[in-house]
Amino acid sequence: MPVIDSPQNRVPKLLRALHTKKGREESGLALVEGPKVVEEALAAGRLAFVAWCREASDEAGLRSILRAAEAAKVPVHELAPRAFAATADTVTPTGLLGAAGLRWLGLAELEVPDRAKWLVLCDVRDPGNAGTMIRSADAFGVSAVISLGHCVDLYEPKVVRATAGAVFHLPLARCEWPELRAWAADKGIATVATDLGGKVSLPGLTWAARTAILIGNEAHGLPEDVLTQADVRVKIPMSGRAESLNAAVAAGVMLYAASAPLRDTHKKDKQPNTEGLDGEK
Amino acid sequence: MPVIDSPQNRVPKLLRALHTKKGREESGLALVEGPKVVEEALAAGRLAFVAWCREASDEAGLRSILRAAEAAKVPVHELAPRAFAATADTVTPTGLLGAAGLRWLGLAELEVPDRAKWLVLCDVRDPGNAGTMIRSADAFGVSAVISLGHCVDLYEPKVVRATAGAVFHLPLARCEWPELRAWAADKGIATVATDLGGKVSLPGLTWAARTAILIGNEAHGLPEDVLTQADVRVKIPMSGRAESLNAAVAAGVMLYAASAPLRDTHKKDKQPNTEGLDGEK
Repeated sequence: MPVIDSPQNRVPKLLRALHTKKGREESGLALVEGPKVVEEALAAGRLAFVAWCREASDEAGLRSILRAAEAAKVPVHELAPRAFAATADTVTPTGLLGAAGLRWLGLAELEVPDRAKWLVLCDVRDPGNAGTMIRSADAFGVSAVISLGHCVDLYEPKVVRATAGAVFHLPLARCEWPELRAWAADKGIATVATDLGGKVSLPGLTWAARTAILIGNEAHGLPEDVLTQADVRVKIPMSGRAESLNAAVAAGVMLYAASAPLRDTHKKDKQPNTEGLDGEK
Repeated sequence: MPVIDSPQNRVPKLLRALHTKKGREESGLALVEGPKVVEEALAAGRLAFVAWCREASDEAGLRSILRAAEAAKVPVHELAPRAFAATADTVTPTGLLGAAGLRWLGLAELEVPDRAKWLVLCDVRDPGNAGTMIRSADAFGVSAVISLGHCVDLYEPKVVRATAGAVFHLPLARCEWPELRAWAADKGIATVATDLGGKVSLPGLTWAARTAILIGNEAHGLPEDVLTQADVRVKIPMSGRAESLNAAVAAGVMLYAASAPLRDTHKKDKQPNTEGLDGEK
């Protein structure tokens, strides 16, 4: 394909539009930036097309990802500097952009394994926090991430960047609390509210086989109706002066703690002598 | 004091200089932004002066912090909009800035309690990550934070902001690895390297009474000499597809896990019936 030079060309104009929620919802696409995230979108089969700029990139560094995209029949567009500059307000340091398909599932479409956990973001506003939480959710084997209330759009470019690509591997759903609550009750999923004023201390929590972990807004925590109606309000014990954690750190600690009982079960079921095995890894 | 109007006045010029490391080291001051962080610097006895702009602020919201500063004999400067605009490239949304004293301790000056943990940041580059780690360190009762190698300056404005003020409450030290290693050996402090390739899985780690937790660079982890010479290399077990966590989340999980044995000891020593007490909190 010829090098695209005009900033008015459809490709740079579309990429630029993906910075806005309207642009994403109209096109059904999210912006992906840099080789790592483009690679993850491609691996997840979600990459619609890529665009790169020879002058703005370390060409050798992009060669393998561009070849992989071509091999997967994903259109690859080369943009001249002035067309590439039109794709964003700031310069993309790696010279590589892409567009990947949005995918939102309904609660009814989510898989409900016998043992599983879900991460529910409620009114999380900071894109970096939301993205980091999705990355942790992927690392700790969460079944799906659910966006509740006035959360930042999980396909916003800053969120996608902070997920390091994990956003394309995890099922995402969005709904309101009453719907989530009914679904959880129906499926036998315990709802665990993370709350600075929680009555149960995290290490003392008995984890249900199916658990949804709820994380609230950075400044205000979870809304009152969620706090009162959740099955349990749990507090991360803090021993220091400040009783405050960054929301993404709190989510990470919850997910780590929630993984422990699963690990124990796996040990009992399959690996009676895991101590030694761990040492061999 | 009269309202400062000139951008050439010493107060706005000094505040602006605090955006650079040179400006901070020359003046021995760090920039603090917004009521929350200014309040923490004041509470720690570290606030040198504050500056605010009536037109850029919600005056009522600042009244209590300005009064508290005056009561503590901390100079309060009112800046006219054009002088305030000169303090930074971007607008400070809260209309409140301050300067707080830097404080770096040598390893020899750090307290070494019988039971304690230290957080060591090695080549951490992202200011938001470094600040979030310091905030977690404060929340989980860390004794001091130590900066090693090519870490971002822990008094950079973005770091200070991400600490939510915790940076003024925790002792900070900086050194190189051989010095840290010798100090730890001398004081009987176990050095625990957080490492994706670690041989010991975090839940199986036996925590020493005195432990230094080492966190490495976002992309490259800890340097080879640290990995080979640390007492133990520990891995946070991940069950998901991506074996990768944000560095600040990894640090938070390590600190949470390190707090558990201390909690257990406290229980045994002082609170045989903590379960019930926890429920009352």
